[in-house]
Amino acid sequence: MVHDVPGSFGTRGSFSLRLAQTLFSSASLLFMSLGVEFYSYTAFCYLVTVMGLVIPWSLTLALVDGYSVLVKSPLRQPGILLVIVVGDWVISVLTLAAACSTASVVDLLLHTDRSSSYCPPKLCSRYQVSAAMAFFSWFLTLASSLSNLWLLPSL
Amino acid sequence: MVHDVPGSFGTRGSFSLRLAQTLFSSASLLFMSLGVEFYSYTAFCYLVTVMGLVIPWSLTLALVDGYSVLVKSPLRQPGILLVIVVGDWVISVLTLAAACSTASVVDLLLHTDRSSSYCPPKLCSRYQVSAAMAFFSWFLTLASSLSNLWLLPSL
Repeated sequence: MVHDVPGSFGTRGSFSLRLAQTLFSSASLLFMSLGVEFYSYTAFCYLVTVMGLVIPWSLTLALVDGYSVLVKSPLRQPGILLVIVVGDWVISVLTLAAACSTASVVDLLLHTDRSSSYCPPKLCSRYQVSAAMAFFSWFLTLASSLSNLWLLPSL
Repeated sequence: MVHDVPGSFGTRGSFSLRLAQTLFSSASLLFMSLGVEFYSYTAFCYLVTVMGLVIPWSLTLALVDGYSVLVKSPLRQPGILLVIVVGDWVISVLTLAAACSTASVVDLLLHTDRSSSYCPPKLCSRYQVSAAMAFFSWFLTLASSLSNLWLLPSL
């Protein structure tokens, strides 16, 4: 392959990116949902839904990337790559929306004086970590999408 | 010009897009800030800040587009177009974040039973309209960015 953009589909960089995405998304989901009544806020439900989409998507692509690295023949057809670029882009928009919503709701819960009863500090810091993980996941999905977009015209 | 992508820089479509962006951003800013104590919530302050960035950006580009349409010689240098694509993209991410934050905070204020005292229905519906306008503005900025990105390789 002449054009080896770092992080594009079928390379080691892409495999690491996908693994990191899966990791951060799972962390975000776990911090949000384990033992917490997340379903009382719309934004938190939305985050859980989006993470339920991101995790299988990233995991599948990580498996395909791992296979491509092992057999050393990256699967590079423009059609497949286009689907991946568009899919990554949609996922990244959804993730950004979820992360922003969660962060703003957590901020509101923390700083409104009368809501102190339904957001004990321990829970709120877990929500904050969850939002931060979602932001990391957004950033990595975006990096994947951009490096594949960079590769697209050369095919 | 051989490649006339609808909505790309220097065409009538682009001029309409920019005008609509300016309109929706201004509407969002006005609905949020006129006579409302928006500075008590972080998300609302953020929306006002972002709209203060979007409005001059869209207005400047609308003026340049209008001038290009009038003199019938679109200004198409790859460097300038790249700056516009990247700028539009950054603006669209910021706008999406602001719109999502505002929408989720409004939703929280509407549906939490004890917060009824500090969000009378009239105010909350204004916040909702403001968030909707921000979403429209996001969508139009994205359309501009994509049509310019489409044009970029052909220069």
